[in-house]
Formats: sequence, structure tokens, C-alpha cells
Amino acid sequence: MKVSAFASHGPNQPLEAFSYEMRPIGPEEVDVKIINCGICHSDLSMMNNDWGMTTYPIVPGHEIIGEVVAAGDAVKNIKLGDKVGVGWYSASCMSCHECMDGAHHLCSSVEFTIGGRHGGFADYVRSHWSWAIPLPDGINLDKAGPLLCGGITVFNPILLAGVKATDKVGVIGIGGLGHMALKFLNKWGCEVIAFSSTPGKKESILAMGATQVVDSTKPEELESIAGSLNFILNTTNVTLDWNSYLVALAPKGKFHNVGAVLEPLAIPAFTLIMGEKSVAGSPLGSPAITKTMLEFCVRHDIYPITEEFPMKEVNEAMAHLKSGKARYRIVLKN
Amino acid sequence: MKVSAFASHGPNQPLEAFSYEMRPIGPEEVDVKIINCGICHSDLSMMNNDWGMTTYPIVPGHEIIGEVVAAGDAVKNIKLGDKVGVGWYSASCMSCHECMDGAHHLCSSVEFTIGGRHGGFADYVRSHWSWAIPLPDGINLDKAGPLLCGGITVFNPILLAGVKATDKVGVIGIGGLGHMALKFLNKWGCEVIAFSSTPGKKESILAMGATQVVDSTKPEELESIAGSLNFILNTTNVTLDWNSYLVALAPKGKFHNVGAVLEPLAIPAFTLIMGEKSVAGSPLGSPAITKTMLEFCVRHDIYPITEEFPMKEVNEAMAHLKSGKARYRIVLKN
Repeated sequence: MKVSAFASHGPNQPLEAFSYEMRPIGPEEVDVKIINCGICHSDLSMMNNDWGMTTYPIVPGHEIIGEVVAAGDAVKNIKLGDKVGVGWYSASCMSCHECMDGAHHLCSSVEFTIGGRHGGFADYVRSHWSWAIPLPDGINLDKAGPLLCGGITVFNPILLAGVKATDKVGVIGIGGLGHMALKFLNKWGCEVIAFSSTPGKKESILAMGATQVVDSTKPEELESIAGSLNFILNTTNVTLDWNSYLVALAPKGKFHNVGAVLEPLAIPAFTLIMGEKSVAGSPLGSPAITKTMLEFCVRHDIYPITEEFPMKEVNEAMAHLKSGKARYRIVLKN
Repeated sequence: MKVSAFASHGPNQPLEAFSYEMRPIGPEEVDVKIINCGICHSDLSMMNNDWGMTTYPIVPGHEIIGEVVAAGDAVKNIKLGDKVGVGWYSASCMSCHECMDGAHHLCSSVEFTIGGRHGGFADYVRSHWSWAIPLPDGINLDKAGPLLCGGITVFNPILLAGVKATDKVGVIGIGGLGHMALKFLNKWGCEVIAFSSTPGKKESILAMGATQVVDSTKPEELESIAGSLNFILNTTNVTLDWNSYLVALAPKGKFHNVGAVLEPLAIPAFTLIMGEKSVAGSPLGSPAITKTMLEFCVRHDIYPITEEFPMKEVNEAMAHLKSGKARYRIVLKN
């Protein structure tokens, strides 16, 4: 099968029409006809080889909603015609300790949808059946794509950290990921503080479910909530004044970072020790937790706020993302 | 009441005989006649004002075993004649959220036995009743002192991290704290890796319950166990190659630091994120957990390996500590 896609051929290169031939389908694989695909900031990072692991040409796109149009003989769980979502991962070994333990996203040979494979800025994409997540009935197909990467990236930490409805929590960076985190935590029953450096977003941030917006550019605002938060989720990928946020945690508080910041986090031992605090990280989530999240989203009507572009205007959409003006997630429609 | 003690009057000063008058006892306080007192490395750090919070003259000593000889009218739990242990803390407010929640060690007005108060290099010490931990029947009084600081410092993290008998764990630094951690983790049912930079300790480390000793000065030995440990406890207070130890963790592994290292820990975000790992810290433990630990120690016959000095030879004992040759904890006897 021939796939029509958009690919970049080197760092800082635009996306160009690109076609490739799919190799014959494997027994455990499915092919998915793409309905739409979200754009994630990591598409840009991978296009520019920021993380030193890009192979060119790269077809970005890993927030994919589509329909199963081909399936190998050993495919489980899904059948032709099913609507599925494919995110950052699209294959794992299925037999290592992590896969057998339900943590396929931690498999040492997990494959990235846009790393060594071709992603969702295209008409078709291929996935192992386990990573083609069945979509629950009633889901809004137009807006579900970003849940498969941005959504699960912030949903999984909430479960990992054992966040409770009685907790006071914070989210740093109210963009593509952070705005979904606010919605999840609001439905979790928490008191939710949003840390934002963009004053213009305040009204919309409150509308997403935040209880309070703290201007993260003003140290005194951060100091005013010292010792109060049980959980902070950082979605930004820049170096922050980590200690200030650790100080904002209540005793036993947990700081969870999903931002791919390149410089090591400078974490003062005394702050961790005296407050019995912790700093953790996590990558997306397992297929089972992703399915759980999608069911939670349907039950609570949680979707990202999206802007739509036709797939063929992908370069315009990427320019919009780079401008920092996307509100809050872009979806490319086929 | 007049107390005979040993005090230091400034950084790098020896301990000298020192006496002070106890103010009248408060309703919730007890006075403890000291039988013996362990020496902790933090006594040295406080004597030298390494942490900028020492008030002089300082009477060190916070691993105290003694007998209650006076008690205020509102004292609960303990009575005259009871044998008790007093550790790093000796008072907390009893009414804040943390105290009411059983985490008295995280009370924002918790008082250090050797900070603004006078400690256990003396014949008597005073404590709030809640921090004078009743000693279980059958405990070995000669060796129990170091459990009150070094012991609880490494016991609490094992509970906090939810370490299981099926876990493979590591302990960095086999000194006063680390050797007790090995004993706890052995009785916990774990496979226990000791990281030591002192090859001469290997046989005694295995005798403490370690399954394997890794020479922490040899990067290739650390690399050989990459991805295998569910929990690592760091008891050293120097800057380590943090990422190497994080890489030694299995997916979902937890690194717990109790070492008062002054330089911030440089933690690469990617290592945390890709492995769903965490870095935590903690200070000692609550009165309830300390009591639980003492019961665990009696049930499993867990005690530190100690060397004894008469209280009056405290300067010789401190010199022995500084030489790095203490095996593994020094106890001063009255």
C-alpha cells in the first residue's frame, strides 16, 4: 500500500509531500486510515532533531484518530472498521517484564510512532494492535486525537501520584498539555492552581476548571502559596526555579515533571528531606491506562480545546504552533 | 536541676565540660536520666555549623537512651521509671495539620534536640513526652541508641517507598546509617545490593545481610546492574553521579536520598521520564513509626554494630568518628 504523507528532510526544513510504500502487514499489525491527527510540540522537537534521535525523512504526527482498514491474522481486541487512537508509541515487544506487567510504555524496545516509523501527517499509519487503542462509544472524534499523547502524558501522573479529590494541586504551563491537566484535575475533585506566565489566558484558564491562577513570573505570588500543594505537575520544557516550586509543595508533596527539559533539574537535597517530598517523571502511559483515560473523558465530557487545519495546510499549522498562539491544541483533518 | 554536659563553643572547637540549669519542667515535658548516647555524623556537622543553624554553646548528642526521672502533669504515654529513647527531635507543636496527621517530624515548629536545646552528651536531657519514645520490653539498651536517629532515618524511607519483599534494592554508603539499612532490608525479605567505596568492608557487609557488594568507585560494576533495582537508598552526603544510580533503577524505580548533600542534585529529566522514576527525601520519622521500628528491631534482633566509649572520653570518640574508622556507630556510656 502506498501512503501519502508530509515529511521533513532535515532540521528546520518545512514539511513536503512525501509518499512511501508500506511493507507487507505483519500478523499482529493493523493499518489505520487517518481521520485526523493532532500536532504536539514534540513533533517540532523531533523534526529539528532536538533530542538527537531523529531519522530523516520524518513523517511527524502521533495524535491519530482513524479507522482500522487492515489487520494481521493474530490481531486481538480490534477488528476492521473499528475506530482507534494511536499515540506516541505504536509497538512494544509484548513479552518483557514491563509488557507482561502492563507497563508496555516502559518496554526497552518500545517503538515511537515518529521514530524509525512513519507517523500521522498522512492518510494511513501502521501500529501494533496493542497500541491502537479502541475508542469508546460516544467519543468526539474531532477532538479526541490530542488525548492520545498530550492527554495521557498528564493523566498518567495523576494516577501514579495517587492524587485524591481532597488534594490541592498545581499545574505549571497552561498550553496543550497543561490545559488538559486542569480539566482532569477539576473532574478529580481537586482544588486546582494554574501557574501561567501569560496573563491574557487567565479567564480561559479559570473556565477550564482552575480555582486560581498564579502568575509564575512573579516570585511573590509563588511564595504566597508556600507549603500548600500536595501535587504539582510541570508541563513546560524549560529550566524553572525548581526549589520555589518544591517549597510551594505541602509536606509529603509530590512534584511530577513531564517536560522534556534538556538541562538537569537542580534539586536541593534539604528541601526534599525536610519536607519528605519527591520529584518524579513519566512518559505517556500504558495501553490499559490510555483506554481508562478515554472512558473517563467520555464520562466527564473532557476534551482539549482545539483549532482545526486541513492536513494539506500542515506548514501553516506548524507556523501557528511555533508562534505560541495555538489555543490550545491543533488538529489536522484529512 | 543542674545538668553536667559536654559542649562546643564554636566551629572546630573541642568539647569541654559544661553545666547548665534546667528551667522548671513544663506540664507536657519529661526529664530523662541518660544511660548512653550514640554519636551521629550530624553532631559533627552541627558542632561545625555546616548547616548554618547552630547556636553556641552546643551540647551535641541525639541518640539517647535513658530513664524518665521527672514528668509534668500533662504527660501521656510514659511514667517515671520508664526507659525511653530520644532522637533528633524532642518537641513539636502537637496541633498543626502535620502533628494531627501523625507526621510530627514534619511540623513546621519541630525542635531539634541539639538546636536551641541541649542534647545528650550529658547526664540529663529534656523532651516533650511525645518524642520520648517508650522502649519495648527486651530491647538491648546498650545498642538501641543509634536506632533513634540513624535507624529511623533509613527505616522510614523503606516504609514511605512501599518497599516489598520481592524487591531488589540498593544502599549507597555502608556506614552508620547504611549498615542499619542493610539489616532492615534483609529482614524485609529483599535482595540487597550494597554500594561501598571501601573494599575492606566487603566481608562484614555481606555478614550484615547484603546479597552483593558493588564497588561504587568502579563505573563498570554500576553499569552491570543497570535497570535492575526497584529502590535505592543513599546515605552519603557527597555529590554522586546521580544519573548512574538512576540508570541502575528498574523502570518505576525509586531513589531515596537521606544524605545532607549541600550541592543541589543534578537530575536529568529524561532519565526520570523514560523510566517513570522518582527521587525523594525524608527526615527521620514520626514518633509512631519510630515506635514501630523499635518493635521490629526487637522482633528481628536488629541492632547497629557499635563501639563504646565512656562519656568523659567524648573528644577521643569524636576523633575516632572523624578518622572514618568507626565500625559502625559509636555509643557514649554514662
